Amino acid sequence: MPGSLAQRFLPISIGLDFGTLSVRALLIDAAGNELGSGTHAYRHGQIVDSLPTSGQALPPDYALQAPGDWIESAEHATRSAVNASGIDPTRVVGIGVDFTSCTMLPTLRDGTPLCQLGQFSKIPLAWPKLWKHHGALQQTERMNAIARQRGESFLSRYGGTIGLEWFFPKMLETIELAPDVASAAEVWLEAGDWLVWQLVGGSADELPRSTCQAGYKALWSADEGYANQDYLAAVHPLLAEAAAHRMPGRLLSPGQGAGTLRKNIADRFGLPEGIAVSAAIIDAHAAVPGVGAAEPGALVMVLGTSSCHMLNSAYYRPVSGVAGIVEGGILPGMFGYETGQAAVGDAFAWLIKLIGHDDFDKISGEARALPPGAGGVLCLDWMNGCRTPLMDGSLKGAFFGLTLGTTPAQLYRALLEGSAFGLRWIVDLLRDGGVPVERLIATGGLPHHNPDLIQIYADVLGTEIEINPSQYGSAVGAAVLGMIAAGTEKTGFHSIVEAATAMTHVPDQQRKLVAPNASTFDAYQRLYQGYRSLAEVVKNTLITPGQK
Amino acid sequence: MPGSLAQRFLPISIGLDFGTLSVRALLIDAAGNELGSGTHAYRHGQIVDSLPTSGQALPPDYALQAPGDWIESAEHATRSAVNASGIDPTRVVGIGVDFTSCTMLPTLRDGTPLCQLGQFSKIPLAWPKLWKHHGALQQTERMNAIARQRGESFLSRYGGTIGLEWFFPKMLETIELAPDVASAAEVWLEAGDWLVWQLVGGSADELPRSTCQAGYKALWSADEGYANQDYLAAVHPLLAEAAAHRMPGRLLSPGQGAGTLRKNIADRFGLPEGIAVSAAIIDAHAAVPGVGAAEPGALVMVLGTSSCHMLNSAYYRPVSGVAGIVEGGILPGMFGYETGQAAVGDAFAWLIKLIGHDDFDKISGEARALPPGAGGVLCLDWMNGCRTPLMDGSLKGAFFGLTLGTTPAQLYRALLEGSAFGLRWIVDLLRDGGVPVERLIATGGLPHHNPDLIQIYADVLGTEIEINPSQYGSAVGAAVLGMIAAGTEKTGFHSIVEAATAMTHVPDQQRKLVAPNASTFDAYQRLYQGYRSLAEVVKNTLITPGQK
Repeated sequence: MPGSLAQRFLPISIGLDFGTLSVRALLIDAAGNELGSGTHAYRHGQIVDSLPTSGQALPPDYALQAPGDWIESAEHATRSAVNASGIDPTRVVGIGVDFTSCTMLPTLRDGTPLCQLGQFSKIPLAWPKLWKHHGALQQTERMNAIARQRGESFLSRYGGTIGLEWFFPKMLETIELAPDVASAAEVWLEAGDWLVWQLVGGSADELPRSTCQAGYKALWSADEGYANQDYLAAVHPLLAEAAAHRMPGRLLSPGQGAGTLRKNIADRFGLPEGIAVSAAIIDAHAAVPGVGAAEPGALVMVLGTSSCHMLNSAYYRPVSGVAGIVEGGILPGMFGYETGQAAVGDAFAWLIKLIGHDDFDKISGEARALPPGAGGVLCLDWMNGCRTPLMDGSLKGAFFGLTLGTTPAQLYRALLEGSAFGLRWIVDLLRDGGVPVERLIATGGLPHHNPDLIQIYADVLGTEIEINPSQYGSAVGAAVLGMIAAGTEKTGFHSIVEAATAMTHVPDQQRKLVAPNASTFDAYQRLYQGYRSLAEVVKNTLITPGQK
Repeated sequence: MPGSLAQRFLPISIGLDFGTLSVRALLIDAAGNELGSGTHAYRHGQIVDSLPTSGQALPPDYALQAPGDWIESAEHATRSAVNASGIDPTRVVGIGVDFTSCTMLPTLRDGTPLCQLGQFSKIPLAWPKLWKHHGALQQTERMNAIARQRGESFLSRYGGTIGLEWFFPKMLETIELAPDVASAAEVWLEAGDWLVWQLVGGSADELPRSTCQAGYKALWSADEGYANQDYLAAVHPLLAEAAAHRMPGRLLSPGQGAGTLRKNIADRFGLPEGIAVSAAIIDAHAAVPGVGAAEPGALVMVLGTSSCHMLNSAYYRPVSGVAGIVEGGILPGMFGYETGQAAVGDAFAWLIKLIGHDDFDKISGEARALPPGAGGVLCLDWMNGCRTPLMDGSLKGAFFGLTLGTTPAQLYRALLEGSAFGLRWIVDLLRDGGVPVERLIATGGLPHHNPDLIQIYADVLGTEIEINPSQYGSAVGAAVLGMIAAGTEKTGFHSIVEAATAMTHVPDQQRKLVAPNASTFDAYQRLYQGYRSLAEVVKNTLITPGQK
């Protein structure tokens, strides 16, 4: 517990971080002290094998969740966190919510999930679809084909492709395959928005929808709103009808106030009513305020099995190949850019297994001892397709420059370098497109397990990289948003940057800055050009039987 | 021992197969019965560390041999073979000699090697240079540069490049670095030619030189002779002088009579004098008659760590990328084409080690179970450069189509398929260039150890492949040439084809024909086009730091 007297009176915010299997509640004060946390797993976890109500087996591409679990687990996690912290709950001024996305559900206008009604409880498509539910493949392909035919302008904000996991394909799946459910669905919404709505109450017409989820997953923009009615009608008349009449609510940026905690939830959670609640944010995107990167030009790299690179900018620049550009999509008043690499930690694990290597420290050491260029081996890091900038999941990885003397350590280093070249391509793309990138922050599990990777990233970019030590970046980000939503009067913060900076302050002894090596940077310039040349020819060449 | 009475009177030929470490003598009769064999290692082996006469340390790129060893070992091997066979030596009508190449030496006009003279015995560059001696790197580069500047016509017969291991670079090395030796060298010649000269005697002006060695290693052609004097003088005046005055002799095709066994050697070897001796042949090239492929259109594939594909044709067609085209280079009256792949068995061994796999049968079985295309993985088999058709040792290998699910067995199968596509490219190149390829014969160690490879070769080519069971292909080929040199009167053979076919007859129970699978052949057509496309883009793309 913080010792100083003043700290005992600092305002506190709660971050509620809804992951795939559990929710974490984290209490942070205005100085960034983490006062307590609690986690609680969802009773039904991911519903992928059979429906709890009927035992009915689910198709292999289904992934559902139970909305009651979210509230129940949030209650337990919040109470645990408050108990662990020992604080006076009246000090809590704000609550922020981050959630997996696009996890979405149909409800009545009073917010009741359809799956909680007797007649729909045994119909799988009446249940919330988890982000990874892949039942809408045909719907996605048709929506893409028609959008391209019509030259829909929204495509330019998404690198030209609507994702399989997004909002409208999931809605269309139910319209086509469970018409009774679609007809009874008075409201379609993201789970994060539903959760916030449950916290603050109010009518369906006022329900707080996040510009983050809407912008990145539901073809929404501040200028154009959702995808236009003509397009949606060309896909399916009922899709247009649902978008027009079954998606009520107000669009709010993360950090904007969605309302205040209503009494029945406050009682369940053991908190006073009236606490400010922020509009929701996607869990990955919460890492941006979570590492204190609330200013334009800070690229936050969440590095794990894959990587997500997010950045706020004062400017809208339709950079070709950037997966999503959303006004107010991450923080109010800025354009949020989302980019990413589809295989990072996953690719490293694959290679280590492929070469039958079980001594990670040994191969890391051998790879570290090699010069830039891995002794002539070059890798295209597309083992799970290329997310940014090519937006093509069918692309495949490659190794070039193999000789009879090529070693496992050369392959491994070449893969790390390939990942770095892929990142450099993204940064170049943003900068060349007029989007400043001035600061790089790495977070997620990988920077801590694989410091060599961050050194190579820094060397290839020629830029210092900060490694953020937070273990709970998304929960911290949600708490920052809750604090912002509480307003200046209660928190003393005059800007988002001020709040995010104060609440994510990294003590000097935990501060980790990785500086680029200038001579190594020089050596990488030509190698990077080689990577780009090969990427160019490989993407244009018929190479594998699976490709047309 | 053969039982029938008639066989006891069949004429016999001896093949003397001079390898890098030892010589093998093999006795075969006109029906192809192998009657006896003997091997004997060279007393000094490869001389790579220090000179036997002085103990002087040798540079790391030096590899020398002692000419006395060749005669001594041939004597022992021949006596062993004759003793083992129990035959009457008077039945021996011919001797054929194959030899590593370009292994070459300077002698006096009476055939005495300079290294056997007191004043030169302690000078390394007076000794025979073994084929793998790499001391002439600078000389080779200069010879290539000047040949290209001058647009020398001989380059078209060698894919545009003079090899580091060839005759003139080795000669020039001595001219430049050991001028006293060069000045004393009255005769420069291939070791195989020297050996034949020792067997038959005669003056230097009549010494029998092989068109095989001269054509493939010394820029010789039937039409133009050796490289022209202006070119050689442009490289070094003494090189032109040596070519004009220090390379006496007659050019003879393998199989043409070089003379008859002279008394002093006949006595040493325990044979009667007067036996016909064939002009020499390069050891690899001896495999062509050695597997009975004496007719035009038969491609003999010697498969080992690398592969050498040889073929005789009635036509001279300057096919771009073919390493050597020599009139009478393999057999009299035909044009011998030499092509090859630089990494075959070597590449398989490298990959198996790279992926840490120690169970060859297991990975072979898994690879065999995969469909054509190795589940989307494609390999460029250039781990030791590309010999035919690109003639570029600096090219590197590659794997394409990698995903997070790619397995070791997929890589291994892709490598076998890449090797097959490389072979198909060679066969297409010959056929498209007007050189018929009508029969394929695989020999060497690899076909016996890796039958899956031959099946994939057959499937990719859509052609039946014969696997020749001989363990001593080169020695058999040398014996066939000896029999041919003996002439119709002594052997009853009216043609080379007739002799080669009879002497290399494969008993039905040892006959192994690998038939192509028609449906697999179809599947490979598109994959082969993918291989060619990728080969095209990779060879034209800057990819590795080692390349300009």
